[in-house]
Amino acid sequence: MLISESALRTFTESVFTAIGCSPEHSRLAADVLLKSDLRGIDSHGVARLNGYVRLWENKRININPDIRIVHQTATTATVDGDAGLGLIVAPMAMRVAIEKATQYGSGWVAVRNSNHFGIAGYHALMAVEKDMIGFAMTNASPLVSPIYSSERLLGTNPMCYAFPAGKYPPVVVDMATSAAANGKLEIAQRLGKQVPEGWIQDKQGNSTTDPHALKSGGALLPLGSDAEHGGHKGFGLGATVDILSAVLSGANYGPWVPPFVAFLDPPTDPVGLGIGHFVGAMRVDGFRPVDEFKSHLDNWIERFRSSATVDPSQKVIIPGEPEMDADADRRAGGIPLVDAVVKDLNVLAERFGINPLD
Amino acid sequence: MLISESALRTFTESVFTAIGCSPEHSRLAADVLLKSDLRGIDSHGVARLNGYVRLWENKRININPDIRIVHQTATTATVDGDAGLGLIVAPMAMRVAIEKATQYGSGWVAVRNSNHFGIAGYHALMAVEKDMIGFAMTNASPLVSPIYSSERLLGTNPMCYAFPAGKYPPVVVDMATSAAANGKLEIAQRLGKQVPEGWIQDKQGNSTTDPHALKSGGALLPLGSDAEHGGHKGFGLGATVDILSAVLSGANYGPWVPPFVAFLDPPTDPVGLGIGHFVGAMRVDGFRPVDEFKSHLDNWIERFRSSATVDPSQKVIIPGEPEMDADADRRAGGIPLVDAVVKDLNVLAERFGINPLD
Repeated sequence: MLISESALRTFTESVFTAIGCSPEHSRLAADVLLKSDLRGIDSHGVARLNGYVRLWENKRININPDIRIVHQTATTATVDGDAGLGLIVAPMAMRVAIEKATQYGSGWVAVRNSNHFGIAGYHALMAVEKDMIGFAMTNASPLVSPIYSSERLLGTNPMCYAFPAGKYPPVVVDMATSAAANGKLEIAQRLGKQVPEGWIQDKQGNSTTDPHALKSGGALLPLGSDAEHGGHKGFGLGATVDILSAVLSGANYGPWVPPFVAFLDPPTDPVGLGIGHFVGAMRVDGFRPVDEFKSHLDNWIERFRSSATVDPSQKVIIPGEPEMDADADRRAGGIPLVDAVVKDLNVLAERFGINPLD
Repeated sequence: MLISESALRTFTESVFTAIGCSPEHSRLAADVLLKSDLRGIDSHGVARLNGYVRLWENKRININPDIRIVHQTATTATVDGDAGLGLIVAPMAMRVAIEKATQYGSGWVAVRNSNHFGIAGYHALMAVEKDMIGFAMTNASPLVSPIYSSERLLGTNPMCYAFPAGKYPPVVVDMATSAAANGKLEIAQRLGKQVPEGWIQDKQGNSTTDPHALKSGGALLPLGSDAEHGGHKGFGLGATVDILSAVLSGANYGPWVPPFVAFLDPPTDPVGLGIGHFVGAMRVDGFRPVDEFKSHLDNWIERFRSSATVDPSQKVIIPGEPEMDADADRRAGGIPLVDAVVKDLNVLAERFGINPLD
């Protein structure tokens, strides 16, 4: 089913309003989810709306949070999200980072007591709009094993770096630090297919190609997959995200991170508050004039895009380019939703007395 | 051959002094190389000393550089290294970052017109000594192909994040953004062995296990190896390092980065000055009290270290731990040097009238 951006936006805002969010918060939360759907990252958009509602039902989300700075210097801060929606908390933290950067050149905010924040790219791109370089990362429910381990100790812990270009869309590196995302496993499960070696291991920690192994106590592998192919580097990146997001902010880290899914209870021995994020902004003109930077980044993009390729039909992909293409297509032609998601959303519509999607 | 730290340090300082470095610069450059040898990263220590001397012979290094800030805000700066040794330029840039962080909470310095800076960990650890989180990255001679490309467009572009712990050594994530380092290929070449799939491709861009393929116009693969295993993420990380280090500073980027080896000439159409680095420091107490952070990082380390493993004889490795163990061993028992390196160094000794290693 294809649905227009504006119809899906109105629908999503209505759901957030129905569970008690203020009009401003409903607009912001819907904007974060819509950005994901527009950019073609279907796993992080309205497909998760029901998940947020379930967390609210389980009293794991505070709909009227008092989001506040609990510690700061001129260019650093820790924000407590008061168990609010990450979709609200993270953009507010990014605003603090941008204000500090405006005044002092850079700004860095660690966030505790938050929740799933949608796509990292949304937050990093807030900085890009101000001719700043944006950074965003978050820890997440433990699904990934360190190299040699048979336990799930890290989330897919995404990191995002976003840079403003001139003629071209921003360069946006927005990536999980695992070899493969959970969404790819779900596709293989639906199709009854095996997955490649190097994505997952079973409960005992042995490599497997069974996409159901994750559900049976297995784990995702870090980027690099195994020790021979640099899996310790993927583990190091996931660890970096965990430490910056949670050890620095006072959130839960490692296996203590509360699960996103409402049917699993958070650990009973927390080491911090909620989940953690880390966001930052640096003014480009803190380093060189903005027009110089942008014209060199354009040149960088052109050189990489025009690279000789193995298969001439397959060009080098500039990070962020496929998402920007999806954004243009979907703004014009509508956002495709699979039947399961439409059904899920229409259950919410009925429950909250909202016009269903059709 | 085993040589004591102090003897190797004295020798290395003498070589830098012999090519004209000031006593202070000779001490600093030797300290960076020795730190690498002590930490067991043999590829980046005194084994490269001859390489720096050759660059000096080819007039590609300025022995008395005027290293200066060319652009800045309260917490950001661009430093021009004046074609000095990266071993000197990068620590000076890090000092600027630490000063800014001391005053404003964080400090970030992009560096242009520099050269190979040794191990990223050296620079990041300078911040850790001040209870700050340290960041260091650099671009490098093009050896890595983006996914789908048959050209070498990126260096192994390492990134380092370093965090101060309490009871334990710092957590140091110091990693090339390629799947495998060049040094591992050289070992396979010497032993006449094939390398695993996923490390390199040949000149046409096809996957190969021949360790000589890199020398014959092939390329290293980014971390993740191929599109199926997240190689676009490794490319994205390498791109991030290139943009922060060079597009932001005004250094050369992508295929324009001048080669480290003196027998290859730099491109004749540079897009900037020298190679680029990016370093930063953030005060831990800009986010939460230092003792709280350290005790939680200790807890993080203990939890990951005590993780159940697939093979009980193989424990989870905390990033930076093997290097710290090597450091303790080598400070006590001496630094092992292979014959080829000793021979190389003794040629320098004879040339400059320095006592040879024996």
